[in-house]
Amino acid sequence: MATIQPRTLQGFRDFLPDAMLARESIMDGARAVFRSFGFRPIDTPALEYLDILTGKGGEETDRQLYRFEDHGGRQVGMRFDLTVPLARYVAQHIGKLGVPFKRYHLGTVWRGERAQRGRYREFMQCDFDTIGTSSLVADAEIVIVIHELLRAIDVGPFVIRVNNRKVLGGILARHGIESDAASVLRALDKLPKIGHQGVAAELHDQVGLSSAQSDAILEFAERSGTPDTILSQLAGQVRDSELACQGLEELEQVVHAARAGGVPADRLELDLSIARGLDYYTGTIYETFLVDLPAIGSICSGGRYDDLAGLYTRESLPGVGASLGLDRLLAALEELGRLQTRPTPTQLLVAYFDPHHLHDYLQLATAVRRRGIAVEVYPEPKKLKAQLKYADRQHIPWVLIAGEREFAEGKCQVKELATGESHLLPWTPEGRELAEFLTDRLAGEARS
Amino acid sequence: MATIQPRTLQGFRDFLPDAMLARESIMDGARAVFRSFGFRPIDTPALEYLDILTGKGGEETDRQLYRFEDHGGRQVGMRFDLTVPLARYVAQHIGKLGVPFKRYHLGTVWRGERAQRGRYREFMQCDFDTIGTSSLVADAEIVIVIHELLRAIDVGPFVIRVNNRKVLGGILARHGIESDAASVLRALDKLPKIGHQGVAAELHDQVGLSSAQSDAILEFAERSGTPDTILSQLAGQVRDSELACQGLEELEQVVHAARAGGVPADRLELDLSIARGLDYYTGTIYETFLVDLPAIGSICSGGRYDDLAGLYTRESLPGVGASLGLDRLLAALEELGRLQTRPTPTQLLVAYFDPHHLHDYLQLATAVRRRGIAVEVYPEPKKLKAQLKYADRQHIPWVLIAGEREFAEGKCQVKELATGESHLLPWTPEGRELAEFLTDRLAGEARS
Repeated sequence: MATIQPRTLQGFRDFLPDAMLARESIMDGARAVFRSFGFRPIDTPALEYLDILTGKGGEETDRQLYRFEDHGGRQVGMRFDLTVPLARYVAQHIGKLGVPFKRYHLGTVWRGERAQRGRYREFMQCDFDTIGTSSLVADAEIVIVIHELLRAIDVGPFVIRVNNRKVLGGILARHGIESDAASVLRALDKLPKIGHQGVAAELHDQVGLSSAQSDAILEFAERSGTPDTILSQLAGQVRDSELACQGLEELEQVVHAARAGGVPADRLELDLSIARGLDYYTGTIYETFLVDLPAIGSICSGGRYDDLAGLYTRESLPGVGASLGLDRLLAALEELGRLQTRPTPTQLLVAYFDPHHLHDYLQLATAVRRRGIAVEVYPEPKKLKAQLKYADRQHIPWVLIAGEREFAEGKCQVKELATGESHLLPWTPEGRELAEFLTDRLAGEARS
Repeated sequence: MATIQPRTLQGFRDFLPDAMLARESIMDGARAVFRSFGFRPIDTPALEYLDILTGKGGEETDRQLYRFEDHGGRQVGMRFDLTVPLARYVAQHIGKLGVPFKRYHLGTVWRGERAQRGRYREFMQCDFDTIGTSSLVADAEIVIVIHELLRAIDVGPFVIRVNNRKVLGGILARHGIESDAASVLRALDKLPKIGHQGVAAELHDQVGLSSAQSDAILEFAERSGTPDTILSQLAGQVRDSELACQGLEELEQVVHAARAGGVPADRLELDLSIARGLDYYTGTIYETFLVDLPAIGSICSGGRYDDLAGLYTRESLPGVGASLGLDRLLAALEELGRLQTRPTPTQLLVAYFDPHHLHDYLQLATAVRRRGIAVEVYPEPKKLKAQLKYADRQHIPWVLIAGEREFAEGKCQVKELATGESHLLPWTPEGRELAEFLTDRLAGEARS
């Protein structure tokens, strides 16, 4: 019989165990941090009625939607983000959930994007939001969560940049260019990529601003320094815009509250040029960059919105949240050499050395496993060399070898593959000495 | 503007936080157990080329497949189980993975089933398999994994039932009814539901067995007792069937090795009537029942197969594995009152009591959180009564209250909602006393 060629669709990925262990480790870490703040997990279906999804993310998103007719003749689509399902979810369940409603959601989403390097049609989002409160405490908490999250994942030095849409909104209004706000913001978002000259050209040629207007906006957006310096410099400049003043006041509160919540001064910056989510965010905006790899872009972004679920309910639900870019973060950590990948969770391979002692091996493996060590028993009594080769290939750090001689002496050999050193330990069915020895050595390795 | 009615598709579910916390807790536990045996996580895409999926699970599965044409005109389908993707995956990657290859995979699958109570069109599977070895050590290990898994999840008393397809295969052959094997096995699988008389009638009327044949088969399948008793009784009876003898020998090895690996005698039974996966399993077969709720069916099932990936590669890949039925298990635990659901992970709510002390609250929350307690700061300075009501509704066990008086004294009040009792503790920005107090109390609760 002819075989079917095993292959995956373009833009879709198989995860091999080393990649998957790294993903699981970050997801576990993220869940633990979200829970430590009282964010509550939810999940929603992969498939939704098409009318729930279309028209929510703009024309491009509509085009990218995986859509079809199901068995019951219903028009359905696969979720393309976790925000639209969240809006539908809270509209449906907010009575049961109550407010403030803090939720996290780790889920797969699908977008039929044009295939290109580094762009996937299936990827994971890790969102967290606080719904149903306008309090800036929630805005500050998002900064604190991002900080704890990236500390826990151990990403190396990073900077969280905050802005507030009202500041730039007020400035634009003062210069009489509020009707062009979207195009101005879109141009400003390109600052890191095309630089001052490029943005100035775009503001002039495409948006139609005068040189004076363009200069004023750019001077504003490019301001840098500590949050306190910028805030005090600006306070005078925006005096005549109520909206900008309000934005500054909000930024100040968020920055100070975040610092109180343990975010060090050098990890939190104001950046008046960030303007993501053009039609969506209404207050605080967040982006997060790795100091050693800023070019990969923001790894955790979000902001405040006035009305999450207006399409599905008349109840007004303001909220604030952010999303960790898991795939981008993994790519960055890999590039920085900070990703500790290993092909298996196994810490000790018990060699199947002497068939008469299989039951001893199985007994010991269970005992040591229950003491917190990941133990694998090789399933076949192959030559020791083949079993060691397997351990080596899987990067299993320790191998236990016990044959007739060791059993006669009540001992076992524990071999460290990295050094080739062997240690002779007492063999007891409870495996206490062995487990303690390995716990100690493995903790030492993790530290070094 | 008219709003869109927020709703989910029939057969699909939103998970509210309490249900999701229970799911996450079981999935976390399962992953930890799988890793402790050296099973390695993988993931595969939700969407596959249609020809990878069709014809692999029988006509019914083909009918239930969610399928459509994607943006590039490709015929695609959503995965309906994790076994077919695994077969495709190992065929594609086995050179990189090596054998034995032990993997686990927690993933969502989709089936457009006829909607009925308790049947979902989207559900989660938790599979674990060892690929590339015929050794019975791997078969025994599956029993040991099931045992550790259900111990870890704390499901209450359970029994793992094992069988071997070769035993019944040999018996059928001896009675000259091997060509009817599939229909006989299908009838025997109904023993728990329709009983002896029902199965006898089906074997006679539908399969066309003689009364003598039907009696012999049923006497065989209904045998019960300890594995050792059954094995010794049968040894004499199957002497003239080499296949049945081999099956018995295999069962004996699996049972003894599983016991060596810590599975107590009373949790492991032989059941010669179980015959799942008619065209698929070739050796050991597993089912697992909760002693207090057997009627809900097997919560963890699987078996050995000779050739996993024959449709995609000419390399012969035998394997053995099982699958934890997460949705069924959760339903069972809920029915048994063993599911500890709570709406939030928060253990301490810091009341936003005095706006002048917001920064103190945020500082303390971070400190206590870093000491392992899940802490939420209420985001608005509402009346204390409203904040306590929120805590009560979310089943948050402890609330911290500190206002001018407490700050003047360097203290804080910690209120236990279940008893109404308040405790006065020293307030320190490091939160050590508070964290130690709560850790102690929460551990006490978990024990009681």
